Amino acid sequence: MTAASFDLWLIGIGTGSPAHVTGEGMQALRDAAVVLVPDKGAGKGDLAALRYHILKASGTQARVVTFDYPVRDPALPYPERVARWHDEIARRWQSALTGAGQAGPVALLVWGDPSLYDSTLRIARRLTPVPRLRVVPGITAIQALTAAHALTLNTLNGPVTITTGRRLRDHGWPEDAETLVVMLDGDCTFQTLPADTRIWWGAFLGMPEQILEHGRIGDVAQRIIQIRAETRARHGWIMDTYLLRAHTAES
Amino acid sequence: MTAASFDLWLIGIGTGSPAHVTGEGMQALRDAAVVLVPDKGAGKGDLAALRYHILKASGTQARVVTFDYPVRDPALPYPERVARWHDEIARRWQSALTGAGQAGPVALLVWGDPSLYDSTLRIARRLTPVPRLRVVPGITAIQALTAAHALTLNTLNGPVTITTGRRLRDHGWPEDAETLVVMLDGDCTFQTLPADTRIWWGAFLGMPEQILEHGRIGDVAQRIIQIRAETRARHGWIMDTYLLRAHTAES
Ligand SMILES: C[S@@+](CC[C@H](N)C(=O)[O-])C[C@H]1O[C@@H](n2cnc3c(N)ncnc32)[C@H](O)[C@@H]1O
Ligand SMILES: C[S@@+](CC[C@H](N)C(=O)[O-])C[C@H]1O[C@@H](n2cnc3c(N)ncnc32)[C@H](O)[C@@H]1O
Repeated sequence: MTAASFDLWLIGIGTGSPAHVTGEGMQALRDAAVVLVPDKGAGKGDLAALRYHILKASGTQARVVTFDYPVRDPALPYPERVARWHDEIARRWQSALTGAGQAGPVALLVWGDPSLYDSTLRIARRLTPVPRLRVVPGITAIQALTAAHALTLNTLNGPVTITTGRRLRDHGWPEDAETLVVMLDGDCTFQTLPADTRIWWGAFLGMPEQILEHGRIGDVAQRIIQIRAETRARHGWIMDTYLLRAHTAES
Repeated sequence: MTAASFDLWLIGIGTGSPAHVTGEGMQALRDAAVVLVPDKGAGKGDLAALRYHILKASGTQARVVTFDYPVRDPALPYPERVARWHDEIARRWQSALTGAGQAGPVALLVWGDPSLYDSTLRIARRLTPVPRLRVVPGITAIQALTAAHALTLNTLNGPVTITTGRRLRDHGWPEDAETLVVMLDGDCTFQTLPADTRIWWGAFLGMPEQILEHGRIGDVAQRIIQIRAETRARHGWIMDTYLLRAHTAES
């Protein structure tokens, strides 16, 4: 039996504040027939609560279908581990949806914006047949960071590089970069940078727990490391993002 | 007489679709006492219409105060020309607001996100006294582009560089860049790149007139240049953004 293609909508929900959701996002939730949601057990409890809060606020009548995230196989080398994990998630979506017999668009709530350091689009393209995709943009952690600090992302007409903690550690400061935004950094890699680099740091951006710090690396790195460790221990998890400018760049 | 400080809210409104506005943006418009709007004459007519549409949709009771954009002095060298222009805009905001006698927060509607290639924050910091600033993030042209193409911004854990047309022309492809996003390019600078570079291009993103093209530079550059020229002539103006990947990068 060949399954018919269907509409899959990836809806960016922003980074923690229900008020980040756009009018288009709310309308898409109302227009969806099914919403595919990860099981609470798999995620952080407060993030699951946020998803249900947004669904409720939208007024959607869509049927909620859940799936469990698989675990990654730590024995596999990195790219293969990720590829297998994406394959397995795609299989779970497929079977969750088969049972649901949806008669209309299926929506997925995606943290931040679906285009930024997120695998949902890659997983969706593994479904057979590939669904008709629609992406609804959402506020990213980068925007939540610059807004919270009332900071411009770029210097006047200057370039901006977005990267990961791992890449900053392995490759150092990218040549020519004036402004560097770092995501996915569990290791406070900023502490390896020259003392007069400036940092604007934020954790739990958009959420009631939001924490902001900024200053010269030499002045604030230790404080951020400490706040991060304490908050993480108390809260159970943490998400943080930061923007760096070389000390020579305009601010 | 020293003027008292006041609250100035920069509200990102997205890039052309009223449905880009977030719940936070709509609420901020309702909570504002005054909205500062550029005079219709100064801008593109349909952009002014969008602003009024959003104000109406928000249900705000705020008083609308208008100002005229000054013209830039083409005789001045670039950074000074911009600095003087910003000074003059700040003066006009100040006098428009003095007349308005606002008794509460003043809101400005900012195209896209206030942090990205936008001068509103720089101008706001020129006011005396500097107002208490609040920034509400909005969907950027970059997000409207990736959403429309159902494209990821980054390759798997890869870096992203955001730059301007002028910089791409003057400095070429930044070393190490895998994904390059180009804004503010009136000259179709993509045509100078190797034929097998891939491009995802979009104009009037989020608007009813939205146009998308993608492919190898060697295959689509001439078509984009032609579409851009024709549409611009017909429409009176155009805004476009594009994402580039070196042919060696995963897509
Ligand atoms: C897998 S990526 C997802 C990014 C998301 N798609 C976006 O548009 O922001 C997760 C990373 O985003 C950043 N992040 C997401 N939400 C955040 C928040 N509320 N506060 C701070 N950083 C956040 C952190 O750097 C985290 O490591
Ligand atoms: C002065 S910048 C403002 C950017 C805006 N703050 C944002 O967040 O997208 C103007 C540039 O943004 C891009 N842009 C803005 N709106 C656009 C749209 N609707 N479609 C395509 N490009 C757009 C174009 O590259 C244009 O040259």
